[in-house]
Amino acid sequence: MTNPILVEVTRGALVESIHRGSFAIMDASGALRLALGDIESPVYSRSSLKPMQAMPLVESGAADAFGLSDEEVALACASHSGEPMHTTRVAAWLARIGLGEGDLACGAHASRYEPVAEAMIRRGEKPTRLFNNCSGKHTGFLTVARHWDIATKGYEQPNHPVQRAVATSLSELCDAGELPFGIDGCAAPNFATSLTQFARAAARMAAPDKLEMQRAKAARRIVTAMVAHPELVSGTGRVCAILMRASKGRAAIKAGAEGFYAGWIPETGLGIAIKIDDGAGRAAETVIAALLDTLKLLDGSHAAQVILRAPVLNTRGDVVGERRPSSALANLRLV
Amino acid sequence: MTNPILVEVTRGALVESIHRGSFAIMDASGALRLALGDIESPVYSRSSLKPMQAMPLVESGAADAFGLSDEEVALACASHSGEPMHTTRVAAWLARIGLGEGDLACGAHASRYEPVAEAMIRRGEKPTRLFNNCSGKHTGFLTVARHWDIATKGYEQPNHPVQRAVATSLSELCDAGELPFGIDGCAAPNFATSLTQFARAAARMAAPDKLEMQRAKAARRIVTAMVAHPELVSGTGRVCAILMRASKGRAAIKAGAEGFYAGWIPETGLGIAIKIDDGAGRAAETVIAALLDTLKLLDGSHAAQVILRAPVLNTRGDVVGERRPSSALANLRLV
Repeated sequence: MTNPILVEVTRGALVESIHRGSFAIMDASGALRLALGDIESPVYSRSSLKPMQAMPLVESGAADAFGLSDEEVALACASHSGEPMHTTRVAAWLARIGLGEGDLACGAHASRYEPVAEAMIRRGEKPTRLFNNCSGKHTGFLTVARHWDIATKGYEQPNHPVQRAVATSLSELCDAGELPFGIDGCAAPNFATSLTQFARAAARMAAPDKLEMQRAKAARRIVTAMVAHPELVSGTGRVCAILMRASKGRAAIKAGAEGFYAGWIPETGLGIAIKIDDGAGRAAETVIAALLDTLKLLDGSHAAQVILRAPVLNTRGDVVGERRPSSALANLRLV
Repeated sequence: MTNPILVEVTRGALVESIHRGSFAIMDASGALRLALGDIESPVYSRSSLKPMQAMPLVESGAADAFGLSDEEVALACASHSGEPMHTTRVAAWLARIGLGEGDLACGAHASRYEPVAEAMIRRGEKPTRLFNNCSGKHTGFLTVARHWDIATKGYEQPNHPVQRAVATSLSELCDAGELPFGIDGCAAPNFATSLTQFARAAARMAAPDKLEMQRAKAARRIVTAMVAHPELVSGTGRVCAILMRASKGRAAIKAGAEGFYAGWIPETGLGIAIKIDDGAGRAAETVIAALLDTLKLLDGSHAAQVILRAPVLNTRGDVVGERRPSSALANLRLV
């Protein structure tokens, strides 16, 4: 099936580019409440999977054993910008579990926060692996391995007990069997699910009452930590942080690479999974904003509204077009 | 109509993202030689239009009057990286027409060549408008205005004689009437054409024998200048430069923003126009490489082959997937 056009990018009087995609919104009972497009094919959720990948960290007791703060739990779910608030916390957490930057299996990349990236260039500093946007997730994996007192080396390998625990927990949360996986940008496995499977897992995390006690507690803690620390999950001025703040604590959301976006809505027990066919992050941002708006979870703040309908600027700062939800996203209602 | 999938991006065993699009290859007689998808709707060609936008510069006699080198003509067609080879030449050219950086209507942005961008950050230097990838095109516009001895201020306005000359020349080259326009990233008008109109104009520039003498001479000079100076048209290590070099001087190609790509093939008199629906430059690169390969214009160099089938790497440098032409691009032949 061909997915519907969800986002249009205009310039002057013409639509210059379009983005097709699909999404599913489910509740914790597994009922599909709203959807468009193909929601059954397996897709990688990339960094949107991090809150699920953090489940063994909390559920295993590792988070409590090492006295993790909610800020650290939020960092385990983060695609962070590599600002000092992120890197110093990850470094301290690593030290607390007796490890260091060299134990992280992810590669290094520059800070995504321009003032930090530029300051480092001025000082001639090379980014370390702490700056990898996934360094919190990896530190979470290492924390589980330390808690279980098993080898930390190879913790990112698909057959390592930590990754097996992630796979099992995810499969159970989304009522799936063995899930296919690819290797993510940070070298850890990323499991593919359908959008219905992902949204179901997110809904169960958002409204975990029917889950087994330890798992329910873990889910509640993870979603609460994300909502409480939007900038730790992403960074200063990032879309995830802006939209979470605009929801006034009512939504946890998480971007993934290649056009994935996910949401956890505790008050209504809903889970959201979005995939843009072509992998465009800009379109996934428009769709998550539109769905939060549909669910009446966005305030009227300028910061949120310019994500929903984003001006396209030229290099002089003039508005020359806009990125907007397509008509397919208008007048949607939950069933 | 829904355009076909032209490019697939894989991760592990799954296709993670897809790119739909369309393209037209025409010859100078106006015959369609190869095409897929919607080739009749108006689309912006963005920076792929620069060689057409440079036509009045040469055709008006301005290039000769100011003694422009082929390097400067190439820069008029460039989306350059802001390396010293670009910025020093544009600065010298501006000085020669009695103008300076402040006369450019485009905004400033950082050099796209990382060593230059980083060195400027280290030295605390702010990019000037010379670094705008379109500064050569704008200097070309200014050169025409100086040659005509008319106001240079407002040269980027749609009703300024220079922009009217661009519109007229383009309309004639592609057998169109008045063309719609939007405002480009650099503040100049960008005219929308169908892919057949664009490819027809490019073919006529590539094989200009039937054009009026001055226009034919201008087209020949522009295409020759691009082929002779691939790095001036783009920059060190850029896809345009790599593929032009891999064609051994047999193809001029030019990327545009939002997934446009264009080609001018003098030896066969062909013009190529590609538009990716979703605006992804990565996909347009795959398609132009595939079409050049179809036309037997790519050598076997590693640099060109890894554009045609591009490995997807993670932050550690491991290959985790690939970006490749879809089956729709296999076994194509000119009619």
